[in-house]
Amino acid sequence: MAQDKKLVEQITSMDEDFAKWYTDICMKAELIDYSSIKGMFIYRPYGYAIWENIQRELDNRFKATGHENVAMPMLIPESLLQKEKDHVEGFAPECAWVTYGGNDKLEERYCIRPTSETLFCEHFKNIIHSHRDLPKKYNQWCSVLRWEKTSRPFLRHREFLWQEGHTMHATEEEARQETMQMLGIYADFLENVLAMPVVKGRKTDKEKFNGAEETYTVECMMHDHKALQSGTSHYFGDGFSRAFDITFTGKDNQPHYPHQTSWGVSTRMIGGIIMTHGDNRGLVLPPRIAPIQAMVIPVAQHKEGVLDAAGALLGRLQAMGLRAKMDSSDQSMGWKAAEYEMKGVPLRVEIGPKDMEKGQCCICRRDSGEKVFVPLAELENTVAKLLDEVHEGLYNRAKKNLDDHTRVCHTMEEVKQFMETEGGFAKTMWCGSLECELAMKEQLGVTSRCMPLEQEKVGDVCPVCGKSCDTSILWGVAY
Amino acid sequence: MAQDKKLVEQITSMDEDFAKWYTDICMKAELIDYSSIKGMFIYRPYGYAIWENIQRELDNRFKATGHENVAMPMLIPESLLQKEKDHVEGFAPECAWVTYGGNDKLEERYCIRPTSETLFCEHFKNIIHSHRDLPKKYNQWCSVLRWEKTSRPFLRHREFLWQEGHTMHATEEEARQETMQMLGIYADFLENVLAMPVVKGRKTDKEKFNGAEETYTVECMMHDHKALQSGTSHYFGDGFSRAFDITFTGKDNQPHYPHQTSWGVSTRMIGGIIMTHGDNRGLVLPPRIAPIQAMVIPVAQHKEGVLDAAGALLGRLQAMGLRAKMDSSDQSMGWKAAEYEMKGVPLRVEIGPKDMEKGQCCICRRDSGEKVFVPLAELENTVAKLLDEVHEGLYNRAKKNLDDHTRVCHTMEEVKQFMETEGGFAKTMWCGSLECELAMKEQLGVTSRCMPLEQEKVGDVCPVCGKSCDTSILWGVAY
Repeated sequence: MAQDKKLVEQITSMDEDFAKWYTDICMKAELIDYSSIKGMFIYRPYGYAIWENIQRELDNRFKATGHENVAMPMLIPESLLQKEKDHVEGFAPECAWVTYGGNDKLEERYCIRPTSETLFCEHFKNIIHSHRDLPKKYNQWCSVLRWEKTSRPFLRHREFLWQEGHTMHATEEEARQETMQMLGIYADFLENVLAMPVVKGRKTDKEKFNGAEETYTVECMMHDHKALQSGTSHYFGDGFSRAFDITFTGKDNQPHYPHQTSWGVSTRMIGGIIMTHGDNRGLVLPPRIAPIQAMVIPVAQHKEGVLDAAGALLGRLQAMGLRAKMDSSDQSMGWKAAEYEMKGVPLRVEIGPKDMEKGQCCICRRDSGEKVFVPLAELENTVAKLLDEVHEGLYNRAKKNLDDHTRVCHTMEEVKQFMETEGGFAKTMWCGSLECELAMKEQLGVTSRCMPLEQEKVGDVCPVCGKSCDTSILWGVAY
Repeated sequence: MAQDKKLVEQITSMDEDFAKWYTDICMKAELIDYSSIKGMFIYRPYGYAIWENIQRELDNRFKATGHENVAMPMLIPESLLQKEKDHVEGFAPECAWVTYGGNDKLEERYCIRPTSETLFCEHFKNIIHSHRDLPKKYNQWCSVLRWEKTSRPFLRHREFLWQEGHTMHATEEEARQETMQMLGIYADFLENVLAMPVVKGRKTDKEKFNGAEETYTVECMMHDHKALQSGTSHYFGDGFSRAFDITFTGKDNQPHYPHQTSWGVSTRMIGGIIMTHGDNRGLVLPPRIAPIQAMVIPVAQHKEGVLDAAGALLGRLQAMGLRAKMDSSDQSMGWKAAEYEMKGVPLRVEIGPKDMEKGQCCICRRDSGEKVFVPLAELENTVAKLLDEVHEGLYNRAKKNLDDHTRVCHTMEEVKQFMETEGGFAKTMWCGSLECELAMKEQLGVTSRCMPLEQEKVGDVCPVCGKSCDTSILWGVAY
């Protein structure tokens, strides 16, 4: 047990220093490592396995809704990036620039993609000519680069892994439907796979994507009541089509500009998982994304038959289609318990000589620490039920956190009071002006998170300017 | 049928101009597109879907042999690249260099990874301390950049997609086993999934990877008798470990340098598929990698019940776990036949009113053009059998090409004669000297492909210097 305690002591308590607790988990659960370039991280096997599970779940949903994967070049000529004015203004200042190929200075410099709208548009121009060529519903899994000044594991990298969907449609209506469909897929995935409740909403013009007409977002609340923007879906109208001169011949035999969307989520969702579900013993992984859903641990494994019995349990769990493993190493039981708690494995399944006599095993839940003895005949049913219960439990706890720390406020004073005492999402009315949005940021340090799709009339006037208005909005402090 | 002919005419005949035929297929089968940067290509949905299938098949094999995926940064500081002397000499001249981050000139320039040995070594130094930390068996799927002067779709890109495995082992023996195991996995995959017969062998010192002690290769012969190096597996010894000062404490409590391997295959395998199996009607895809294994085409689909019957066939094929689709668009039968021939779909499954009366469908094989009428009750069995037969047929045809155009030669004159008339792999003895290897290249324009693992004593002396020797080697012209 000394070893056990030692491991646990290595994590800073989240109540003491949430940022340090977060970084401790990233390192101690072996999710990530630093490289020699500031802000560029190494995704270690356990962290990358979470990303692979996220990829598989999302990719299935993308393909089921008719999307196809492609791979675009990683470099963008400066002249291409400049074709859409708002877009280049937003991204050029944080691009990394390639100026030499081998020993030769390039005639034009190339940036490493910060996002790929311009590359997709260049390609769309080549392949879209007729209404028969539409829609084009593409996605790519890749990494992008943004030369940020500050960095934090998963939350802010200079290079991060993501997916970016890019679609072209014959009509505005279809493109708008696509934008909302993808937002819905993100929300469903976050809630039903990552157990992270979301608020779906629209970004203000100030917060929207550079070059988009409208940006929609799924916002999540972390354990410390701060916000994490967890996915965005953009409606572009025909702005890029016009800038890139992409047209198609419609059924009416006339040229038209297609309507465009893009949408993306990134490895920052892994940061979201950590900060939504983690506790002072380490990572807590939602079962549907956990690289290891159940870890079988033989107790007193030198005793006759124990390893066989544990191996049989492992076989049955794997036959259920679960991601299960067994640890029969010579580490102590205490070490193993602490290790798989740190790594957030949802269920620990233990079996020893006494259990074998009684025809049972002992299952320990990572989320609650609760232990139950399960008759071997009921293993599959119980494990399936427990995994669902862990998911529900994590979701409900996170939902309570979100609900408890979303507060209706009518005045700036109320927002100030709320943010200073407990923090969270302050819900107010908003007149829609940039001035009032900036005043909230300058005076109270909060940014607009979104105008929720589920609007609620929580007052009559904007708390900043006092004008009467109809739109409700959430304010918070964001990662 | 006019439309049909038109499509077919768009491809140059392979006998007329093999290079043009190849590029035509890449474009007309919609595998790839050019971008505005020379040598950087766009992988279109159909081409990328082949790569996704390759990834899934290989990834399963890697994981089944205990490998884990990770993601390393895409940038390498120049000082890091320089740590291993042979390595930097080989790669630095073809690196793309990042010199600016945002508006700031970087203090040190970074190259975009041409390969990641140095990044992995830097990380290994952080995480390997004890024999308990070994082996580390890592892989990453990513793209790499090499600033080549010339380019061809799939075969030579400035940026290409690949996987790179990097492993560290406590002993030389274990690392050598790993090197050969991965070579075996590549050979098995090429032969049993891509239907491409291989010669397994070792590269000469001149042709080995920069920084490796030994490089092993799987060499394939294309339809035009040229060679394609289709995968390589390297044994590094402890050269990088020493350069990067990576040590571990052994069971003997002494410090040791670990032994290293790396191994990789890339999207150039897709070029190999095209040039091994394609014909004058377009792409021919091996069934186990084809994005669409069977295309259902309703005949006279406006007639009552046809679409339902075709839909039922599609459902049964998908229920078998096949990648099957249906084309019920308003294009002509001729267009559809030509289109799916161009795209290399292994089986076309047609059903119309007459077939329905007879309780049958008509299945057309892409490889042979052969048509068979299949009773509906026997659909699943027949389709499964046909797909295996197509695979075997493609493999056997390619194996015959390889065997027929591998020729034992005893003198340089014989090699010259063989290469000038039909071309292929000239098999000779070799004394092992760089001088003789260079003479073959300078005088006959051939490079050494490999010293086959299955050695065959085809003579007593080196055809260049006449010295007696024991090693046989293959020469050829390579892509």
